[in-house]
Amino acid sequence: MLNEDTIVAIATANGIGSISIVRVSGTAALDIALKLSKRPHLTPRLATLSSIYNSKDEIIDEALLIYFKNPFSFTGEDIVEFQCHGGIAISNIIMSEVIKLGARLAQPGEFSKRAFLNGKIDLSKAEAIAKIIEARSEDAVKLLAKQLKGELTDFVNSIREDLLFMLAYTEVNIDYAEEDLPSDIFEQITNKLEKIKIKLEDTLSASRRREGLIEGFKVAIVGKPNVGKSSLLNRLLNFDRAIISDIAGTTRDTIEESVKIGTHIIKIVDTAGIRDAHDVIEKIGIEKSIKAVEEADIVIALFDNSKVCDREDEKILSLLKEYSNKEIIKVLNKSDLDNNFDKSKLEEFIQLSTKETINPLIFKLETLLDLNTHSDDMTLISTRQIDAVEQTLSHIEQSTSPLQTGELEFFAYHINEALLNISNITRPYENDEMLDVMFGAFCLGK
Amino acid sequence: MLNEDTIVAIATANGIGSISIVRVSGTAALDIALKLSKRPHLTPRLATLSSIYNSKDEIIDEALLIYFKNPFSFTGEDIVEFQCHGGIAISNIIMSEVIKLGARLAQPGEFSKRAFLNGKIDLSKAEAIAKIIEARSEDAVKLLAKQLKGELTDFVNSIREDLLFMLAYTEVNIDYAEEDLPSDIFEQITNKLEKIKIKLEDTLSASRRREGLIEGFKVAIVGKPNVGKSSLLNRLLNFDRAIISDIAGTTRDTIEESVKIGTHIIKIVDTAGIRDAHDVIEKIGIEKSIKAVEEADIVIALFDNSKVCDREDEKILSLLKEYSNKEIIKVLNKSDLDNNFDKSKLEEFIQLSTKETINPLIFKLETLLDLNTHSDDMTLISTRQIDAVEQTLSHIEQSTSPLQTGELEFFAYHINEALLNISNITRPYENDEMLDVMFGAFCLGK
Repeated sequence: MLNEDTIVAIATANGIGSISIVRVSGTAALDIALKLSKRPHLTPRLATLSSIYNSKDEIIDEALLIYFKNPFSFTGEDIVEFQCHGGIAISNIIMSEVIKLGARLAQPGEFSKRAFLNGKIDLSKAEAIAKIIEARSEDAVKLLAKQLKGELTDFVNSIREDLLFMLAYTEVNIDYAEEDLPSDIFEQITNKLEKIKIKLEDTLSASRRREGLIEGFKVAIVGKPNVGKSSLLNRLLNFDRAIISDIAGTTRDTIEESVKIGTHIIKIVDTAGIRDAHDVIEKIGIEKSIKAVEEADIVIALFDNSKVCDREDEKILSLLKEYSNKEIIKVLNKSDLDNNFDKSKLEEFIQLSTKETINPLIFKLETLLDLNTHSDDMTLISTRQIDAVEQTLSHIEQSTSPLQTGELEFFAYHINEALLNISNITRPYENDEMLDVMFGAFCLGK
Repeated sequence: MLNEDTIVAIATANGIGSISIVRVSGTAALDIALKLSKRPHLTPRLATLSSIYNSKDEIIDEALLIYFKNPFSFTGEDIVEFQCHGGIAISNIIMSEVIKLGARLAQPGEFSKRAFLNGKIDLSKAEAIAKIIEARSEDAVKLLAKQLKGELTDFVNSIREDLLFMLAYTEVNIDYAEEDLPSDIFEQITNKLEKIKIKLEDTLSASRRREGLIEGFKVAIVGKPNVGKSSLLNRLLNFDRAIISDIAGTTRDTIEESVKIGTHIIKIVDTAGIRDAHDVIEKIGIEKSIKAVEEADIVIALFDNSKVCDREDEKILSLLKEYSNKEIIKVLNKSDLDNNFDKSKLEEFIQLSTKETINPLIFKLETLLDLNTHSDDMTLISTRQIDAVEQTLSHIEQSTSPLQTGELEFFAYHINEALLNISNITRPYENDEMLDVMFGAFCLGK
């Protein structure tokens, strides 16, 4: 299933660095590398230092060449990596020389797509690769590394096996209804179905709880005007900012409102242009607060210790009750001033002054995030995966009634649908369009 | 001369990419790699796919490991490269695991400094490495690749040999004045000196002419108000912008006023905050124009075809005469309007309308840049190198008079100084401070 085209892309991030990698994949990859390096051969996997020549026979760089012979490469095709000097121009020049020799620029995600088509990775691993590049916290990386290593593949395979067993039994029973079958087979199937159901439900709820793990948990700050929202926001944004900068480097604009808390990333939900003027957050009315709360995984509700609990505070409190499915942290701010707020209204709360320290809140946040992330449950990492599991679960549920009434054709239909849906996670039977959409969202060179 | 410390850095650019490289150099590099990969050994230069484990025994990535055994590595020490998945978090996590196992974060340029100290590269090559990363045009890359390949090293070595020959003759002559020496030795030395002088002078003038080759030639636009400077600037900035963006990618802010013309880069000299408001350029007075011209390699002087040549135009023309050492392009703008400008005042000029096309100017610029860059002369790429050659040349010049008067001690002194100075380009005898300054300007991971 080797593709005729040979593709090329810069595989490292664009910008100033010591090393860049230009990656070439396809039947012409080795030939192109030999021409550019003027070498008679390249030993597979052996890093070889060589001058690189352009079409005018001028030296354009000294690079390390690594040749991966098919099928022992990422794409399953012949791959040559040019580890050249970093920076903006040089990798582009090498890339254009590679193109002159017959390769074409790769589409975003095309390397991964070829790896998938050549059976080197399944879809769940491809998704993990795409997400791991964007991951910003250690937790996210660990989760994705597990998926990359095949955890979800194994999970899908074990469910497939069980479903195939049921299907096989059903077919036998439909075709040879008279034959003797183990007397407890019905019980066995019912048990298996129940176990699969629980497995899928656990996975779904764990995945929903940890939805923020990869891109950051969304946090909303609510409270009436002048309760200290801006001040808290600023304290949060500056918390551990040094570490964030270390990690983020040049891509600063993508993490503007992200904060690292322990091994987690939180993102401040911005419903009112917080980005543009920090004071705006103070003016957010109750309607905007509702929107912020709806979007958030975690809500921080601020109350003013120095003032009596008024109608606006009550509104916030009743809003919180409506959204009791969210993680809610109530904070009684301005603890440095005299108490006028009726604390019994809050039940559980943290007392602090954003003017002094927000450490009690950080501690609470970290505990909460730890609880939501540290778990050995299988976690799904994309809407596509969640969709597939939901569909599978739905057909499993619909299969129990025909099984009990003995309508085995209906039972078989639902088990077959469940099988198709769970298989979609790793290796869909036929759906080219879906593949294009999925791999098209990858970054270039992947 | 192996360093006890083991150092680590991310060698690829920071940002979103498919692959990142974490590079470890030092005596502990191999041991650290074996621990992180749980492998019993790594074969030198053989790219090996492996799981990477953190200190808690969790898998954090699947990476390609390449081990370069000392002295066959960039630094001359043991090096292990981790080619891990790209992005922000993962390389940082691997780096921190490497640090936990005893390495420390590298200083900027520390890999190159170690390469220099271990005799793997000389200073001229180290400088080429530092510059090649920042290079933005094909011309710059080719020039630097030549230096990386050792062109300047060879140049320095040939001059050193000649100077050493002279020094040896002189010492013999001072110590054993009575002995018979070839009768034409004086003539030989005078000839050699003259040849060296011409070589050094050619190199200096070629280098000055091509100073803009690496970072872009500086271009100033001058002319009286409303002559069309803003319009020209905008046309220039938008010229081939697509290509620039392709190349520059995420580092947009560093090339804001750079334009690619053919294989060259030009930079618009900004003396009046052009950056902030394009209209400002129209308000630049004659004083600011002088400053712009002083800084520029190339001056584009604009005149208005529709107006008579007035006192302000005359001022510009006399300014241009003062700076006749610069490359000057006179442009008669607004060729779409009726001519009122006395063309004889301009001598040579290009006629165009910035409202229609600036192609005639682009063509002229490209021809000019080609002339200034395409040459096989040796080119120096840093102030440090130019300084060293100037010092060498000065001592060569001072050596001729004592040679003719037979004051051989003075002659020997100057030749010795010339030798020290030319040697500084590749391998200074002793100057730790200079090394720190030089390598400190490198980017991290280099």
